[in-house]
Amino acid sequence: MPEIDPFGAFVDYPFVAQPMIYQGLLRRRTFGVKDIFDVAGYRTGCGHPLKREQSPIASRSAPCVQAVLDNGGVFVGKTHTDELAYSLNGENFHYGTPLNPAAPERIPGGSSSGSAVAVAGRLSDFAIGSDTGGSVRIPASYCGVWGIRTTHGAISLEGVMPFAPTFDVVGWFSRNSALLRDVGRCLLPAKHTPRISRLIVIRDAFALASEEISKPVLDVISRLRDHLTAFDLVLAPEGLATWANVFRIHQGYEIWQCLGPWISANRPQFGPGIKERFAWASTIAKEQFDAAARSRAELRRRVVDALGDDGALILPTAPGIAPVRGTPPEQLENFRNRALQLLCIAGLSGTPQISIPGHTASGCPIGVSLLGSAGSDLALLALCNDLLDPEAASRP
Amino acid sequence: MPEIDPFGAFVDYPFVAQPMIYQGLLRRRTFGVKDIFDVAGYRTGCGHPLKREQSPIASRSAPCVQAVLDNGGVFVGKTHTDELAYSLNGENFHYGTPLNPAAPERIPGGSSSGSAVAVAGRLSDFAIGSDTGGSVRIPASYCGVWGIRTTHGAISLEGVMPFAPTFDVVGWFSRNSALLRDVGRCLLPAKHTPRISRLIVIRDAFALASEEISKPVLDVISRLRDHLTAFDLVLAPEGLATWANVFRIHQGYEIWQCLGPWISANRPQFGPGIKERFAWASTIAKEQFDAAARSRAELRRRVVDALGDDGALILPTAPGIAPVRGTPPEQLENFRNRALQLLCIAGLSGTPQISIPGHTASGCPIGVSLLGSAGSDLALLALCNDLLDPEAASRP
Repeated sequence: MPEIDPFGAFVDYPFVAQPMIYQGLLRRRTFGVKDIFDVAGYRTGCGHPLKREQSPIASRSAPCVQAVLDNGGVFVGKTHTDELAYSLNGENFHYGTPLNPAAPERIPGGSSSGSAVAVAGRLSDFAIGSDTGGSVRIPASYCGVWGIRTTHGAISLEGVMPFAPTFDVVGWFSRNSALLRDVGRCLLPAKHTPRISRLIVIRDAFALASEEISKPVLDVISRLRDHLTAFDLVLAPEGLATWANVFRIHQGYEIWQCLGPWISANRPQFGPGIKERFAWASTIAKEQFDAAARSRAELRRRVVDALGDDGALILPTAPGIAPVRGTPPEQLENFRNRALQLLCIAGLSGTPQISIPGHTASGCPIGVSLLGSAGSDLALLALCNDLLDPEAASRP
Repeated sequence: MPEIDPFGAFVDYPFVAQPMIYQGLLRRRTFGVKDIFDVAGYRTGCGHPLKREQSPIASRSAPCVQAVLDNGGVFVGKTHTDELAYSLNGENFHYGTPLNPAAPERIPGGSSSGSAVAVAGRLSDFAIGSDTGGSVRIPASYCGVWGIRTTHGAISLEGVMPFAPTFDVVGWFSRNSALLRDVGRCLLPAKHTPRISRLIVIRDAFALASEEISKPVLDVISRLRDHLTAFDLVLAPEGLATWANVFRIHQGYEIWQCLGPWISANRPQFGPGIKERFAWASTIAKEQFDAAARSRAELRRRVVDALGDDGALILPTAPGIAPVRGTPPEQLENFRNRALQLLCIAGLSGTPQISIPGHTASGCPIGVSLLGSAGSDLALLALCNDLLDPEAASRP
């Protein structure tokens, strides 16, 4: 570890390479980091004990983590993730299930489970996660915090475990939209994008959600009507299930490209659900992937056309509140497949999405999502901060 | 870990329980902690992998560590120690030998090896260690930094591995005496003790050291002569070897009381030198210990009488510069036995001792020691800061 500890003085030395910065937009703001990002001084465990054991102690932090440190953020710890990030549930077979502070009898959501919980439980001011298929948006919705999935490619993923590279993005959680935006100002390219002026209500997304899940979306729409022009749109006349299937195949094939060699060589033990998912991913043929890639290009174009420069789609983040802990794997898998129909829109199109907290269904948190055009992250963050935060900020 | 991480969000969470303090005498000063002290969020490994494995992640920091944090210190990592702290060398069979930044071809000294190296190598502003038989003083001397062994019982050892409890004390290292004193102001009882006005030159200590080791002591004496009255004293007409033998038996018996049960139950692997030392410690009979305890009471009285309220003994910290790395164990053992004749004076009498850097022999660092009466720690620190620091501070 020559860079961190050139003299070999430390047995545990997380902070040697992280001098405290006391200036910057994020000064004194504490943050956790999902354990698929390198943080100097730590192993990158990726939610699996064997991976953790094989991981060297990182000698430098992922650039996005370093940027937060350079802006004064105070790192407090590595957070739990699902095994190799391949789940939306947050139930880690090896490390257990972080407690959802907003709904203790329910799962926190994943795979950025620990980051969402750390923020919801006030153990850190914000927390970094990653989102491939919904790994920031789902736990944000379930735990009742703000969560952003950024534009694909906008923030470097150097020093982060590759999972499905054409979908993987950096994201983060916070309890208020001002901090959500401040983190974005430190990480996102500063280029100007138009203000968001059109709100596009995805009608087919509502069909996937019960009335008590749709209600908060309608509430947000009514609050935004004074500022934005609202339109109705059926995004997927062929059914969002078709979109989700394209997503699953495309993502699954990439996942096996990234992780298959390690899994085949090491035969690690996986928990229920994840084991089956990897087994399935290993069977996806190149021809299936190529077909999915062609479909994806077409679906992406449709999202791009719908959004234009200044549009934002509005939809429920998830089709329901968090399932209770210990729900059988098959039921969770059904729920996942339904959720992917909402989540895949941003994934397939590489667009940013923010899950807005402050609403409940049956007494549990539920998120409402705004999805903007690629590169509109800061405009989306501004919209949330200007028009939607006061209510969320007044929550305890 | 309910106190640190009530929701189970973190896989590594060193800082969750350690909110940053931005006020206090030690604000923004970075520090390392010898791995026999509990630090919340870490295992306490005590220099042995088996001990580390069996150690729970500490839910709270040792009070002396917490006091540093409460005064604004910024923890940077746990530092290496010799196996169960039972060595003065700093060559850990399991973890390797930290590099002595001031003399890379030589050992750093131990058992607070990593703490001394972290400070000498500028990886932290100060570092906490412990001293039973010389474990702060020796590495301070070898690495060319300030080091203090405090008055026995002055600072709580709660949350610290017990080794030989009637000798164990908290100590620390720094690169300048102002910080050495500031740490003391945060940890030591504030009671007033007289200024030091008498300097007592231990003649028999010089007999153990070569001319080039004695020379720095004479230099310090000449610098202090304007401010203190100097006396010569032969402390141990019977020979300091007799004192060292009382120390070794008393300490060895206590060590086996503290660590024998764990060693017998677990049969851990030990490196050369340490294995033999534990085997020897296990053979010390209660009668030998009782005889040593009686002798110790007498020797302590002699030190107390010599010091009075306002005296300080001056002597070489060690009989020589650091041995080269890879010196055969038998040679190191001879060196240790010679060193203990100087080191045992403070141990037997429970008195504080400061090792002053800024001198060299054969181009390597060598410390000069001041030893004061029990409770005179702050007076000793003031003396060093007022009269002896400018030269040391001007070093690179």
